Amino acid sequence: MKILAFAGSLREKSFNKALLRAVRDLAPDGMDVEIFDLAGIPLFNADLEAEGDPESVAGFKKAIRQADGVLIASPEYNHGMTGVTKNAIDWASRPAREAPITGKPAGILGASPGVTGTARSQDQVRQSLKSVNAPCMSHPELLVFRAKEKFDEDGNLTDESTLKHLEKYLRAFSEWVEKINR
Amino acid sequence: MKILAFAGSLREKSFNKALLRAVRDLAPDGMDVEIFDLAGIPLFNADLEAEGDPESVAGFKKAIRQADGVLIASPEYNHGMTGVTKNAIDWASRPAREAPITGKPAGILGASPGVTGTARSQDQVRQSLKSVNAPCMSHPELLVFRAKEKFDEDGNLTDESTLKHLEKYLRAFSEWVEKINR
Amino acid sequence: MKILAFAGSLREKSFNKALLRAVRDLAPDGMDVEIFDLAGIPLFNADLEAEGDPESVAGFKKAIRQADGVLIASPEYNHGMTGVTKNAIDWASRPAREAPITGKPAGILGASPGVTGTARSQDQVRQSLKSVNAPCMSHPELLVFRAKEKFDEDGNLTDESTLKHLEKYLRAFSEWVEKINR
Amino acid sequence: MKILAFAGSLREKSFNKALLRAVRDLAPDGMDVEIFDLAGIPLFNADLEAEGDPESVAGFKKAIRQADGVLIASPEYNHGMTGVTKNAIDWASRPAREAPITGKPAGILGASPGVTGTARSQDQVRQSLKSVNAPCMSHPELLVFRAKEKFDEDGNLTDESTLKHLEKYLRAFSEWVEKINR
Repeated sequence: MKILAFAGSLREKSFNKALLRAVRDLAPDGMDVEIFDLAGIPLFNADLEAEGDPESVAGFKKAIRQADGVLIASPEYNHGMTGVTKNAIDWASRPAREAPITGKPAGILGASPGVTGTARSQDQVRQSLKSVNAPCMSHPELLVFRAKEKFDEDGNLTDESTLKHLEKYLRAFSEWVEKINR
Repeated sequence: MKILAFAGSLREKSFNKALLRAVRDLAPDGMDVEIFDLAGIPLFNADLEAEGDPESVAGFKKAIRQADGVLIASPEYNHGMTGVTKNAIDWASRPAREAPITGKPAGILGASPGVTGTARSQDQVRQSLKSVNAPCMSHPELLVFRAKEKFDEDGNLTDESTLKHLEKYLRAFSEWVEKINR
Repeated sequence: MKILAFAGSLREKSFNKALLRAVRDLAPDGMDVEIFDLAGIPLFNADLEAEGDPESVAGFKKAIRQADGVLIASPEYNHGMTGVTKNAIDWASRPAREAPITGKPAGILGASPGVTGTARSQDQVRQSLKSVNAPCMSHPELLVFRAKEKFDEDGNLTDESTLKHLEKYLRAFSEWVEKINR
Repeated sequence: MKILAFAGSLREKSFNKALLRAVRDLAPDGMDVEIFDLAGIPLFNADLEAEGDPESVAGFKKAIRQADGVLIASPEYNHGMTGVTKNAIDWASRPAREAPITGKPAGILGASPGVTGTARSQDQVRQSLKSVNAPCMSHPELLVFRAKEKFDEDGNLTDESTLKHLEKYLRAFSEWVEKINR
């Protein structure tokens, strides 16, 4: 099972990038997690698209098409998903009836320094995944709040309780991907 | 009264850019509408920000600071605001306690080809404006649905009923800006 | 396949009740739709619950437990789901770890007189179904806008295009219920 | 300044009822807070309304009309507002063009046992208040998370930090009500 994962932050020391590294390390047997870096993806522009997908976008779309499922680590800025996250979804939703993300089983998780732990951000991502018909696992959720206390200085997820919950999340996600793709 | 307006689409023939041109033409006496083109604004990246705002971003923030109010024409992609819209808000929300957009009276409107007329997109923008404490006019709303029937081929808003409603919207927005800034 | 359906309106001539009658008539072979009337369900009160579920609530929960899937016709009041809809979900979500609705494949649809066709209402219902882990079909959506033009005076759905879309919706829902329950 | 406050929970020992008692005690000079108990308000039904508002509803609407502002303590069930909260708003939004709540400056707050502190519930209430044109204060927010640690056994808000934040919230709300009503 191949999972394409991306974090909606471009910052090098992003908690959500760090969270995806933990995902890769903890992935259950048989799940292979590729982390895609969104750094090269430009802002969506239909005029640009009309000239043909930029190389970075073509690579992103291809990676999604080849994956069995998609995992999004969604930071929260201003009580919503980041522009970076939504922009990636906007590209992945094109072209309209043959979008790479359509039909892909999906999971959402996220980390934030505050107490609400990306709850509002995740709900927005979920709403967009619904609209592109990417069936999204509803349970369990994974919200890493007070992220500064959960990662060490090198960006390793060290919080025992979060690690355990992440393992549970990934087992459930593995079953979800199988169920939807069957 | 100076209003800074931007559309969350980069496409040249965007309905939402066209809608803002109609806003500029119909603005009531005393309201001056500047349309800011988001084309040069990069995706937000806290590492980039740490090196100092790029010139385009500095110009965007300055334009907001100098305005008495902000007007956002918010397209809808995938049942949400566009990455372009959210990215602009993410920049405008920085730095955290002295954000250019904080405290600015705001209005949201939008146009889309479909029937829901950016309803979901506008709600997401509103949620983010709330989080940065930009008091947002709640009534009237302006949702231009079936936009293809409302604009001519040159991007002029020609639908009589929409034009009237836009005038009403702008008069209400003018009062809102005054009330909040008093 | 047994489907438990309810409409979030108590009005006798509710468009959403009428929509469920059309659902019952158009259900594909093998799908049996029971329409549950929420009229007797009181407002949720944890003190009342502590004394034991009222008879109407016990009947509602039992009907959900016995069903293979749940279908919610969700009217929109004030840009959100109705109190009636949410109240039904609140009861169906109890007790916390053994809720009747948990795990049930679910579908949402809705009718409204306006143009946005319950889009915002359905998104709120979806958010609550996610929280109780009732996997919700994401595609196709069914939003009956301008409902007054789609039903006749006796509450029969007569709009050809909507009827066809509803049939397509129900076939997809049937597959969704099977997939999730497998 | 008269404020009409209500909590979207019917439970006697509700944290949100307790929060409103703290609001009443901490209200700044000149602000008089009346707490309205929603216990008698039936589920909204347009057929029932057509026969004339039930007495409890008439009293609720009158109390809102006589108030200078409205304050809603919004619990969170199933990642959304409660049916009780939404049902109260549904009644307060009627009749459509002369609704008691329309135009009233409003505030939202909430308490919950979990860590997200009613964030999602408050966003839904805000969306409905927008639709009825009740201008809603955006800042500061007040989310009492882990409510069990913040109230004593008799339902007194005892957490120092929350008490201070509530005082700040109420001063800001007082200014908001004045600004909107001016």
